[in-house]
Amino acid sequence: MTQSAVPHPATGLDATVHQRVRLGILTVLGEARRADFTYLRDTLELTDGNLSSQLQVLENAGHVRTEKVFERRRPRTWVALTRQGRAALRAEREALRELVERLDRLK
Amino acid sequence: MTQSAVPHPATGLDATVHQRVRLGILTVLGEARRADFTYLRDTLELTDGNLSSQLQVLENAGHVRTEKVFERRRPRTWVALTRQGRAALRAEREALRELVERLDRLK
Repeated sequence: MTQSAVPHPATGLDATVHQRVRLGILTVLGEARRADFTYLRDTLELTDGNLSSQLQVLENAGHVRTEKVFERRRPRTWVALTRQGRAALRAEREALRELVERLDRLK
Repeated sequence: MTQSAVPHPATGLDATVHQRVRLGILTVLGEARRADFTYLRDTLELTDGNLSSQLQVLENAGHVRTEKVFERRRPRTWVALTRQGRAALRAEREALRELVERLDRLK
């Protein structure tokens, strides 16, 4: 076996974005522009705690922003992609595309 | 926003297989049939410790098997996909393909 000078596509995956739950959150937000906490939780079949902690990771990384509001006297948390989050999601998409193409060549 | 009855593709990702390093290992093994520890480590740009612990997770899950041999009096660890590991990699590929198609529809 010889080593290629081109890095393997798996080395291009960003762990912050690639992680299963966070990738789900970013994908939903990419589709919906913004989504509330309950919608994300139900769509991705998550617990409140898991969604909260993964949102925190994404917010700390600058990929999403959250906004807590009161609507009809009830608290609601809106979540949206930042510009950086959108770019990160596109980069992940291209890394995944390359990986899928590579996996398509397997016997 | 209305909830779809069809699960979001991100919910179909298997955390054992999807994790960045493990997905890299499985992809290389899918391509190479079998690979030795050093080749995996260098191709995926990993430390010995990280590769060891991720291989352990994959072996415990039944996705890879490892074989320690002596070649020219030097120890060498060969790693190969099991039949189950190959099936898991195919399932991940289809989940990723669906996700990429979905991400392609984003503006």
